[in-house]
Amino acid sequence: MIKTINIHSERMISEFHRILITRDFTEDNALQCAKIFTNNSVDGVYSHGVNRFATFIKMVDDGYVKPNNTPLLKSKQAGIEQWDGNLGAGPLNAMHATDTAMGLSQQYGIGCVALSNTNHWMRGGAYGWHAAKKGFIFIGFTNTIANMPAWGAIDNRLGNNPLVLAVPFKEEAIVLDMAMSQYSFGKMELAKMKEEKLSMHGGYNSSGQLTDDPAEIIASRRLLPVGYWKGAGLSLLLDVLATILSGGSATFEISKSKIETAISQVFIAIDISKLHNYSSIPLMINNIINDYHQSATDDKKINIIYPGENVLKTRKENLAQGIPVLKNIWNEILLL
Amino acid sequence: MIKTINIHSERMISEFHRILITRDFTEDNALQCAKIFTNNSVDGVYSHGVNRFATFIKMVDDGYVKPNNTPLLKSKQAGIEQWDGNLGAGPLNAMHATDTAMGLSQQYGIGCVALSNTNHWMRGGAYGWHAAKKGFIFIGFTNTIANMPAWGAIDNRLGNNPLVLAVPFKEEAIVLDMAMSQYSFGKMELAKMKEEKLSMHGGYNSSGQLTDDPAEIIASRRLLPVGYWKGAGLSLLLDVLATILSGGSATFEISKSKIETAISQVFIAIDISKLHNYSSIPLMINNIINDYHQSATDDKKINIIYPGENVLKTRKENLAQGIPVLKNIWNEILLL
Repeated sequence: MIKTINIHSERMISEFHRILITRDFTEDNALQCAKIFTNNSVDGVYSHGVNRFATFIKMVDDGYVKPNNTPLLKSKQAGIEQWDGNLGAGPLNAMHATDTAMGLSQQYGIGCVALSNTNHWMRGGAYGWHAAKKGFIFIGFTNTIANMPAWGAIDNRLGNNPLVLAVPFKEEAIVLDMAMSQYSFGKMELAKMKEEKLSMHGGYNSSGQLTDDPAEIIASRRLLPVGYWKGAGLSLLLDVLATILSGGSATFEISKSKIETAISQVFIAIDISKLHNYSSIPLMINNIINDYHQSATDDKKINIIYPGENVLKTRKENLAQGIPVLKNIWNEILLL
Repeated sequence: MIKTINIHSERMISEFHRILITRDFTEDNALQCAKIFTNNSVDGVYSHGVNRFATFIKMVDDGYVKPNNTPLLKSKQAGIEQWDGNLGAGPLNAMHATDTAMGLSQQYGIGCVALSNTNHWMRGGAYGWHAAKKGFIFIGFTNTIANMPAWGAIDNRLGNNPLVLAVPFKEEAIVLDMAMSQYSFGKMELAKMKEEKLSMHGGYNSSGQLTDDPAEIIASRRLLPVGYWKGAGLSLLLDVLATILSGGSATFEISKSKIETAISQVFIAIDISKLHNYSSIPLMINNIINDYHQSATDDKKINIIYPGENVLKTRKENLAQGIPVLKNIWNEILLL
């Protein structure tokens, strides 16, 4: 039996904040970082929130994440800027890049910030929600350490390179946050722990057969790219784009170390308030989602949901009842 | 036995040009359009080249494609422009939008053109090759008529909404051109004709089971989205983005007619010559591809190729030996 306790979001922020201050984060940085980790947890993305916080602190303690290093502008050409993340905290760098891209888009219609030498942004969707909630379209992606094979290959030379697309919707947003592997390691480890199968094939076993057994895939490390050759190709292109736009490290370079650091990211924002059809955009999106929700199913239990739709439900629940956290994970955090 | 003949590319251009002139295309428009259809065929994308030319002419004859209508600028905000495609020829509108986005990126670093009210661009990769060969990063996508179900649904409310990413590479480009369905109808019809199975599951049969039998999927019309829920989500977001950025029609609106017309597209270009690391970009991409090509396989017959790599081989062959065309298709074209 796995024991969970519910932690109120304010309590989580305050605990993370306390720990970050002991690691020499400035007051502002500590608070912002604590909020991002907590919000990810509130939204149900525990793997990139509370469950990852101790690992993040270890990255700080080991010197891979520099608490108060801030991004430096390397080059600017109107709507596109290249920044050096200076090995600062990934979530802080990513939020800075998102805000900067939003500012550029206010001036140039569309803005792009490419960030080299940064650290894991945790949950890419966080920046999509942030930008879309303020009225911007957001497109962002990151490269990662190699964790997925090319299509037809058996060794890992591609990252799962998450891609985020977000648009404003009602008071909130539609946010797609998709890694290029069909399942994350985190999801597969959870399924393995619960002795469950995956809903679909998630990779290969050690004999090279497709399988839905998470334990076999974790053992072989041969994750399935989304859409087979298509997701593998998209992953490669996102790595190329992130690398050349930022002038940073590619997946193969990041993978020379066992630790994922000095990665490359891209943040694109579009200011929709300047579009000629601005006033009709809410209705347009509403009409698309209404039609989508009318999809027929052959099973009344199936809900047709748009990307991010479930997040709002989880957010509401977790804000009201507290964030469910594995007891051992919370105890570990209290000792940091 | 399917009979093919080889048609030299110059001969194909001249035949398409002749036909387009009879449909009142101007000399310039006829030549450009003939070249795009021919180049798609030279590159091996027959389904959106020679095999689709007669259908395109029928769209002209039926009044859906207006030969000499050109795009009109609706709104401009620095690096982002909204154009009305005015129901002109899809390939001509798309090339115009690509060139316009490239021009914007020269001025603003990144440029975006959103195009409403246009027609099928045939092969999205064509605009990626065009832009990347001239030294630009290209990101483009289109919506389509509904041809794919939402994840969990049985009726088609999503388009397969192709997404194109392209970067310059050596004298040519790396070009990913991926629709959001695992297989296109064209690929499945070809496999059905040859009585072959698909390489992987491509959709559902009429009993709701995943299948690799193209005939069963064509009958059920339940295509599998790339990566299941992920590709379905990406398709939805691309439709939302194309619709709101262009102020044009969404997939559900396009689908009210049986004929796919008045669609929405987005073209983003980035001028890499302004990046601080411009001179090292060719080496960076080369290093990524070299590493990728070193992927290990458990079968020596497997080639690890990057998106677009096979196109160069086909292009060379078809330029040297002529483009293989099904005899009945070429005969039909000669009668147009």
